[in-house]
Amino acid sequence: MAGRKGNLMGVRDDIKLLDATIRDGGLCNNFEFTDEFVTELYKTNVKSGIDYMEFGYKASRNMFNESEFGKWKFCKEEDLRAIVGDNLSDMKIAVMADVGRCDYRTDFIPKSESVIDMVRVACYIHQIPAAIEMIEHFHTLGYETTCNIMAVSQVSTEQLTQALEMLSQSSVDVIYLVDSYGSLYPENASELARMYIKAVEGTGKQIGFHAHNNQNLAFANTIETMSYGVSYLDATVQAMGRGAGNCAMELLLGFLKNPKYNLYYLLKFIEKYMLPLKEQGVVWGYDLQYMFTGMLNRHPREAIEYTNQHRNDFSEFYKILLENY
Amino acid sequence: MAGRKGNLMGVRDDIKLLDATIRDGGLCNNFEFTDEFVTELYKTNVKSGIDYMEFGYKASRNMFNESEFGKWKFCKEEDLRAIVGDNLSDMKIAVMADVGRCDYRTDFIPKSESVIDMVRVACYIHQIPAAIEMIEHFHTLGYETTCNIMAVSQVSTEQLTQALEMLSQSSVDVIYLVDSYGSLYPENASELARMYIKAVEGTGKQIGFHAHNNQNLAFANTIETMSYGVSYLDATVQAMGRGAGNCAMELLLGFLKNPKYNLYYLLKFIEKYMLPLKEQGVVWGYDLQYMFTGMLNRHPREAIEYTNQHRNDFSEFYKILLENY
Repeated sequence: MAGRKGNLMGVRDDIKLLDATIRDGGLCNNFEFTDEFVTELYKTNVKSGIDYMEFGYKASRNMFNESEFGKWKFCKEEDLRAIVGDNLSDMKIAVMADVGRCDYRTDFIPKSESVIDMVRVACYIHQIPAAIEMIEHFHTLGYETTCNIMAVSQVSTEQLTQALEMLSQSSVDVIYLVDSYGSLYPENASELARMYIKAVEGTGKQIGFHAHNNQNLAFANTIETMSYGVSYLDATVQAMGRGAGNCAMELLLGFLKNPKYNLYYLLKFIEKYMLPLKEQGVVWGYDLQYMFTGMLNRHPREAIEYTNQHRNDFSEFYKILLENY
Repeated sequence: MAGRKGNLMGVRDDIKLLDATIRDGGLCNNFEFTDEFVTELYKTNVKSGIDYMEFGYKASRNMFNESEFGKWKFCKEEDLRAIVGDNLSDMKIAVMADVGRCDYRTDFIPKSESVIDMVRVACYIHQIPAAIEMIEHFHTLGYETTCNIMAVSQVSTEQLTQALEMLSQSSVDVIYLVDSYGSLYPENASELARMYIKAVEGTGKQIGFHAHNNQNLAFANTIETMSYGVSYLDATVQAMGRGAGNCAMELLLGFLKNPKYNLYYLLKFIEKYMLPLKEQGVVWGYDLQYMFTGMLNRHPREAIEYTNQHRNDFSEFYKILLENY
């Protein structure tokens, strides 16, 4: 398999940082960010040199009631433009579309009329054909596209090989390795990354990585997969994201040597907007209950429930997880 | 350089876990643990399959006033025996002796009369000759010994090569790679680990790793260096240790596949003894201020001071660190 790409002191121009704070972080607060928060994060990301900012989901308004969620679950064009105007910055705007949970044929206008640059299609392995159909549609509309294959830690090598082969023949621009359960160790993550990279060799497609911090390995797995050639890196401010959270953007900005990236403005944002969010009681981040679901390679839903109940009986929770394996 | 040793599903019998909670964690609370805490941790470690438990320092009572510290800064024989009796368990007892800060010629009795099994000699690179003198003394007394070379991230390759050569000709049993500033990335850590391993090839000596969590990489660096053949792994309960803390023992117990290790009892201990410690205001663990000193490869003293002052002006603190680089 291929070796490492670049070194710890160099700059790799293929690296793209994607801030997923509003999208993955929105899962912690029902997407109820204030306009000020989102506007200031947008400005901060531009000043920090971030390459893409994901604003949320384009969820079906037939399946989900708009009154029950913050607006970033739906990312309507007018709501995006209220924040970014015509987005005159170099940073690109991304939204996520879940297979089976969006009305992609009606809810997306041509790229030439939209401020959105990239649509990220999230799917499980059995939804790959549906994902490809969506990707081709978005490609025809003029958008950049990614395919984020979730929960790969539960997928067989054979299935994954077939999925990667199908995607490598599609119009998709970036294929994401997604550690949904935070169950990958750096050795697993880099092995999978090399498999993805090999699958797209010669196609011009890029590979991305989306981490979860269940075993406190989100940052480590991100820089490890990057070292083998993964170039699209998801992160969120202070690792805000469902359950144990993601890879912290500040850690990545501290690590990367490209002078276009700047840590200082993100720290200002953290002081003014993230600390109050935590004080208001929005909860995320590594803790023992997430370590358990990570090491057992399962969905964090029980750990999230445990967290919401403010429980501290870790040993009992662990015992029951083992019983329900 | 040598490749990885073992795999993610296997058991490596050379692995030894060392719990350093009282010693490194003692730096957070002036070594003022209750006897109940230390006794219960000892029992927990025995039940969890931990190989070594480090009880604290053997600091000079001429240099440090006994009334100003908890007893685990001095680890007197009678204090150890009050906890462990004759230590009839399989777990071994370790203490740390800092070069230049202990009276090693008078304060250590022969191993045959002591409940201590291992003396860990901590030193900076310029103290290697002094460390070797101590190691030979402890070896003559019958103890297992380690040499923990601190702050290697600031040491030149030439110096380190010489130090490792000197140590490989000494009586030391284990040489520790110590990431004092939490500044190593997994790539650096594993490269250094392979250098240490190569230096002791054919001598029968083992290599250990002691992590700090400044960049949230303590666990990642520990399992990464282990994968290349490091076998003595330091960890602490809930990562308790100076500043950003260490590698969390619970993460290691969750990772290792050897059935001798057991996570459940440690969780019971955490519930009953660690959560109250945090509630009492004992503070440690990853936060932005430690990330800064980690990425800048410097001593965390300014970050510890910042923490003690309960400051939240991260951007200002970062700016000043850059000015005083």
